Amino acid sequence: MPVLTRTPTDRKPPQTIYDVLRAPTPDAWVDAAVSRLPELLIDHANCELKAASTALGFIYRYPERAFLAQRMSRLAREELRHYEQVRSILKDRNIEYRRMSASRYAGGLRDAVRSEEPFRLLDMLLVGALIEARSCERFAAMAPRLPADLADFYTGLLASESRHFSHYLEHASAETGIDDETLLQRLEQLQELEAGLITSGDSDFRFHSGVPID
Amino acid sequence: MPVLTRTPTDRKPPQTIYDVLRAPTPDAWVDAAVSRLPELLIDHANCELKAASTALGFIYRYPERAFLAQRMSRLAREELRHYEQVRSILKDRNIEYRRMSASRYAGGLRDAVRSEEPFRLLDMLLVGALIEARSCERFAAMAPRLPADLADFYTGLLASESRHFSHYLEHASAETGIDDETLLQRLEQLQELEAGLITSGDSDFRFHSGVPID
Repeated sequence: MPVLTRTPTDRKPPQTIYDVLRAPTPDAWVDAAVSRLPELLIDHANCELKAASTALGFIYRYPERAFLAQRMSRLAREELRHYEQVRSILKDRNIEYRRMSASRYAGGLRDAVRSEEPFRLLDMLLVGALIEARSCERFAAMAPRLPADLADFYTGLLASESRHFSHYLEHASAETGIDDETLLQRLEQLQELEAGLITSGDSDFRFHSGVPID
Repeated sequence: MPVLTRTPTDRKPPQTIYDVLRAPTPDAWVDAAVSRLPELLIDHANCELKAASTALGFIYRYPERAFLAQRMSRLAREELRHYEQVRSILKDRNIEYRRMSASRYAGGLRDAVRSEEPFRLLDMLLVGALIEARSCERFAAMAPRLPADLADFYTGLLASESRHFSHYLEHASAETGIDDETLLQRLEQLQELEAGLITSGDSDFRFHSGVPID
């Protein structure tokens, strides 16, 4: 599996999306993305909606945590704004919305979330950070090969999605009180899992799918 | 049960929140609200969050309906903005968030929603219109008796919540294709149910509760 910048023995909090991702998006996925734009865009819209729902899920589960609730509500609003933007792009391009199953990606990560607290909260926040980082990395990987209007759109999303990544990581530390060493050990396990989902063969093409298998 | 402006034989689409509500908020509820501000504000925050979730529920269930999806996403963003504002008010007033059960109101209305389409969609949208109208009516009923800062806040919410009411009613007609007469007959049934929930005794005090029973 390709390594981006970090090794398991070099434990410092990741500063950027590239620090946190263990494997770059495979070229074969980018090739598929640029040739399957309608599916990419529809699934991207779904991902934005699900990201908003995930943020609301934190508020429902941990409503006493006032700062987390405020941040997650704002995050949900941003994701919904992106959802509306992607739906507008679908309309402008005369792409009819059709229902698509979810990719294995988010479910695969959530399966690793532990059930007891505060580990559940820690894991959910770390998974959130990884998903935001991967989304960001894919926007950047696709942009140079997309039509100009879509390239501009995806480049514009980079800033807010990378802020979401930082917020998720901040909350993982601040809301759980778990020490850095323990947090980073757990993050490494989830990073491995995430990279495995991205670099292994995947029969479905989706925004967060692995290496396309025809 | 007190009647506001309409009778069952006068079938015209309601234009304002006062046209659609069959009973005004009882004075006893307003008395309770001004003397139980912490509970009122906490439950109001919960209502805004649930209103956002309800809007997202329409998108998940009817994703092919592009206009509905855009409107519901924007509506959810507005409700979340209000959620954040109420959470800020709680913080400013040093009111600690505590978990409260939902009132019987929204559940009582949703129990009446039919399961077969397009009646399910019609009923859900009409229920949405009624809940928005009632929220609006309660903001207006409370405002004159609230501390100045809260009065300003609730008066400010009136405009957007009454727009939500209009949007729900518009969608009820446009998205279902159900003729006005049938729609208004159904609306009357739901109006009766809604007024009953508001004017009958209720052992829980909540934003949408009935006449307080001590």
